[in-house]
Amino acid sequence: MMDLKEIGQRAKDASYILGTMDSQRKNEGLRAAASELSGRREEILRANEEDLRLAREKGMAQGLLDRLLLTPERIEGIVTGMAQVIDLEDPIGQVLSMKKRPNGLLIGQKRVPLGVVGIIYEARPNVTADAFALCFKTGNAVILRGGSDAINSNRAMVSCIRDGLKKCGIPEDSVQLITDTSRETATGFMRLNGYLDVLIPRGGAGLIRSVVENSTVPVIETGTGNCHVYVDESADLDMALDIVFNAKTQRIGVCNACESLLVHRDAAERFLPRLKEKLEEKQVEIRGDEASRAVVPEFAAASEEDWGKEYLDYILSCKIVDSVDEAIRHINRYNTGHSETIVTESYENAQRFLDQVDAAAVYVNASTRFTDGFEFGFGAEIGISTQKLHARGPMGLLALTSTKYIIYGNGQIRK
Amino acid sequence: MMDLKEIGQRAKDASYILGTMDSQRKNEGLRAAASELSGRREEILRANEEDLRLAREKGMAQGLLDRLLLTPERIEGIVTGMAQVIDLEDPIGQVLSMKKRPNGLLIGQKRVPLGVVGIIYEARPNVTADAFALCFKTGNAVILRGGSDAINSNRAMVSCIRDGLKKCGIPEDSVQLITDTSRETATGFMRLNGYLDVLIPRGGAGLIRSVVENSTVPVIETGTGNCHVYVDESADLDMALDIVFNAKTQRIGVCNACESLLVHRDAAERFLPRLKEKLEEKQVEIRGDEASRAVVPEFAAASEEDWGKEYLDYILSCKIVDSVDEAIRHINRYNTGHSETIVTESYENAQRFLDQVDAAAVYVNASTRFTDGFEFGFGAEIGISTQKLHARGPMGLLALTSTKYIIYGNGQIRK
Repeated sequence: MMDLKEIGQRAKDASYILGTMDSQRKNEGLRAAASELSGRREEILRANEEDLRLAREKGMAQGLLDRLLLTPERIEGIVTGMAQVIDLEDPIGQVLSMKKRPNGLLIGQKRVPLGVVGIIYEARPNVTADAFALCFKTGNAVILRGGSDAINSNRAMVSCIRDGLKKCGIPEDSVQLITDTSRETATGFMRLNGYLDVLIPRGGAGLIRSVVENSTVPVIETGTGNCHVYVDESADLDMALDIVFNAKTQRIGVCNACESLLVHRDAAERFLPRLKEKLEEKQVEIRGDEASRAVVPEFAAASEEDWGKEYLDYILSCKIVDSVDEAIRHINRYNTGHSETIVTESYENAQRFLDQVDAAAVYVNASTRFTDGFEFGFGAEIGISTQKLHARGPMGLLALTSTKYIIYGNGQIRK
Repeated sequence: MMDLKEIGQRAKDASYILGTMDSQRKNEGLRAAASELSGRREEILRANEEDLRLAREKGMAQGLLDRLLLTPERIEGIVTGMAQVIDLEDPIGQVLSMKKRPNGLLIGQKRVPLGVVGIIYEARPNVTADAFALCFKTGNAVILRGGSDAINSNRAMVSCIRDGLKKCGIPEDSVQLITDTSRETATGFMRLNGYLDVLIPRGGAGLIRSVVENSTVPVIETGTGNCHVYVDESADLDMALDIVFNAKTQRIGVCNACESLLVHRDAAERFLPRLKEKLEEKQVEIRGDEASRAVVPEFAAASEEDWGKEYLDYILSCKIVDSVDEAIRHINRYNTGHSETIVTESYENAQRFLDQVDAAAVYVNASTRFTDGFEFGFGAEIGISTQKLHARGPMGLLALTSTKYIIYGNGQIRK
């Protein structure tokens, strides 16, 4: 097992320097890191080939192999992404408010980095550069623990980034990779209180659950999305069709895809046969409750388990409800707090849905697929928070910051 | 063991109603609860007497008995506190920003309750009413788990509050008390994911550590404070004397009291003898490093352990440093991220201290004792966060809120 406390201390030391570094200097570091990644592309691709070879030997599934794969184009994409981060405004150092108290104390609240951020993720080497860039831009040191299947790619990329920083005279320990991929080290990492200010898991439901269960450092829970579309009685059914089709099929493996459809009883007969036809274009399997199967007998039968399921596949569960209130209750019972949408022409139902549905993003007449840092205009995304603490919904640079109170006195003591 | 999931579900159900309740109605509930507490004072005092009797039998220390004690005046204080919460502005429902995206989506960020808040605290019955009032004002349902020694007082108070709410037709389960004070139930409570949105421990270092170690729900770490005063070379020594005396002795058992003093080498001979004399007024024991004992041989000898200690007593550790940088390094190594102050007439050193010290509240020329929700002008305080996630420093009503994105579309789908 690696000496995690030593890694933590090095990150902490780097974070004190990064925390007061001006934006210009941080952008220099990002440029140097990007140029090193771009210039040493061949070295990264060779390391990635080794990862792919080992993964194929282990019989890794095609989808996972694709996530692991780097190509010259993908590396250029990563480098372009870093250039976009350079262009973003640096939120650190902003003073959010400054007020004089009756006793003369001037109390300001200043935006500061979190300090040391830990990222635990799967075998997706693009996350390595991405997470570094966002953490570094916000003055945080980052400790990365990527999936073991990408270890060679990650080593190569982190070595490039560290060399780029070193050339600028910026502490290399701004980014560190945990190269020991054992479970003991992962658990130790999740319990590195006193060094890690926050841990962000990025990956599937299993990874996130494990981090939530085992961590003693503060965690930002990201990701899983059991997202619903509710088609109200008054919905424009052409619009509803487009939205369900888009939310279900535009990309199936993502957390903001629609997994479950609720339809008002009075719209079911007009809507469900058309929906079935439309979704057949993409061979979507629909698993319906009894009422919906009475309308379209070809639907498969849904079980209780289907209502809580994130399929990430060409499968959709479907249930008929009697009212917007029943839809809201169902969603609040089974959702994961990610993204929910109502299709309606009713002002009252739209407002009620927006008010009462408990989720990070609640839509009227739009696809759930928009829940994303770029679509929301943040210019970046470190993940999508499904918890309510600290950050909720797509997380841009601000989610990687904290605040501190700065207080100017002239000798005040408490009476 | 109690059925925690049932308690959790009841809280969740209540939270959906509270979440969209208007401020007027919430204030009615607070008034009714306060009037019930005030009117049934005798019943509460009797329950409290029983707690005190059992505590004395167990040989509880005087300080803890005082925290447990309720008197007619203290109950009136609690009721007055609730009236003050009624007067605070309700932050729920505010839309923090609303922007139109190029595709026509109108994306707003709205302030909402956290949902269900858990509070774990020691045998201090005043926290019961206090925590309820702040959570209720912000539309949260709260589940309380108070110290077992206050169980009768807590039962009586929660019964009053629930009856008050009931009389207004507001769900009683807005507040629930965990009456089973076993360790198993406490652990189960800390792992009530899916029901509890956040857990806030209020109490001493041991309680907080146990919650941080055992919880799988998000925790806001509050409390422990190893706070420093650094007296710079250029300090006004009269001011420094007042500030150290105030920060150390005005109240010793609190988290924002000073526990450790750093003095610049060039101020030590002028300052330390005067300090010794001043602190003798309160019989403060000073534990110094070798250099400070060379100046004042009467100081006790500090060990390495002293630098990290929260004494909560008439004891102060004292160390001589060669520069503001050494002071900052020492503080960042040993502090708990609570409150730190520099006494200086140097602009540069003041700025450097404010920039580089890693703590929730960093002061120039003022006592650390001001770190407090009331002193900061929040009108209330649910605790002082020493973590960087979600809230840092004194937490008022805003710390009990989250946000959700509300998105108005007209048929947008993702390309």
